Amino acid sequence: MAITLYDLAGADPDLRFSPYCWRTRMALAHKDLPVKRLPWRFTDKTKIKFSGQEKVPVIKDGTTTVADSWTIAEYLEETYSERPSLFGGSGGVAHAFFINAWADTIMLPGIGRLIVRDIWALLDPKDQDYFRTTREKQFGATLESITADRDKRVADFRHSLFPIRRVLKTRDWLGGDEPSYADYIVFGQFQWARCTSTFELLTPDDPVTAWRTRMLDLFGNLAGSAKTAADLQAA
Amino acid sequence: MAITLYDLAGADPDLRFSPYCWRTRMALAHKDLPVKRLPWRFTDKTKIKFSGQEKVPVIKDGTTTVADSWTIAEYLEETYSERPSLFGGSGGVAHAFFINAWADTIMLPGIGRLIVRDIWALLDPKDQDYFRTTREKQFGATLESITADRDKRVADFRHSLFPIRRVLKTRDWLGGDEPSYADYIVFGQFQWARCTSTFELLTPDDPVTAWRTRMLDLFGNLAGSAKTAADLQAA
Repeated sequence: MAITLYDLAGADPDLRFSPYCWRTRMALAHKDLPVKRLPWRFTDKTKIKFSGQEKVPVIKDGTTTVADSWTIAEYLEETYSERPSLFGGSGGVAHAFFINAWADTIMLPGIGRLIVRDIWALLDPKDQDYFRTTREKQFGATLESITADRDKRVADFRHSLFPIRRVLKTRDWLGGDEPSYADYIVFGQFQWARCTSTFELLTPDDPVTAWRTRMLDLFGNLAGSAKTAADLQAA
Repeated sequence: MAITLYDLAGADPDLRFSPYCWRTRMALAHKDLPVKRLPWRFTDKTKIKFSGQEKVPVIKDGTTTVADSWTIAEYLEETYSERPSLFGGSGGVAHAFFINAWADTIMLPGIGRLIVRDIWALLDPKDQDYFRTTREKQFGATLESITADRDKRVADFRHSLFPIRRVLKTRDWLGGDEPSYADYIVFGQFQWARCTSTFELLTPDDPVTAWRTRMLDLFGNLAGSAKTAADLQAA
């Protein structure tokens, strides 16, 4: 039976852009587990009340409910231990937790500051007030002023990627010889930006750009074939 | 037979302050390997010519020479595989490489900008010109102006520690249940600062501060008993 994933969607129900849900989607694909994805909006709090909290991703696997992308990754690793490992052993889990923390505390706000106004524009109208209020409180500024000088500030974001750039100069994947959950953590943020904005985060010659392309190609172009902001603009 | 470590020293030969040499010292202690540490100065290039490069740490283990702290850690893990693991398996190695890159590209320059003038003051006089010239070129400013407004800029450094702070809020060690090479990587930088400067990098209530104390206590107070800038001032 397929695992059910509550998956953040925009006004277009096929626009699935949550960085955390993308971590989970890539992890499910890594384990080759079938998934049924239900579109969910920020204000659909009651729809996931059964999970005991208010954010996605949430998965239902038979009678088991798991929330939070990190907890889901640990659950999948343990429950489907006979399938390809997400972490490469216990040392991998501990160290991936650091990468998870880096992505959440440095990379996520770094990208958020560049694209938050673009995200708002693609949301279901019922979500827009909620999103604007919570994010403007978080950043202490209007969505418009947060993103106003992004052409200049993108340099700070690129600078913050030094650690992954250093790794990807000599390796194909953050996880070593094969993609691992570390790659999915970091990639989730790029996919979030790709789905919601046409603003270019990376320069073409950045080793991170080549890695991002490899990530888009994984699992039969899983992420590469997802609907994006560019698709919506072209339509 | 003890492993020989070429270990960066200051004017006081007992002041051993290299962040990279500290990574190696902690790794050797983790593996419970005896070590003979030879003081080395920046300008002693010829003394380690046998290693084919010009920087420490360099170790000699019998007839084997290994340079570069990361390469040394991999060498120790492979050669002494029956001893406690530094990485917790192959997944741990790959992910620790990211932490190594983070420490080198974010943390090291972040601390360097705060203490570089203090380091210079404690160097062997024969090293001072070399150090000033190379570091001023690197930072594009005089040592004095780099550190001038450090009381203000320390906030940026503390901000950059979000990823480890997030991990250490819920875990005792970056490596999981036990200290691992990930901890030694990050700790090496703090020990570098502690040995060369009395400038306080952390606030007392930071979870990183408590972790740093645990690190100082490891292996019978190995790092905690090392000679520091504070000791030299008191003397």
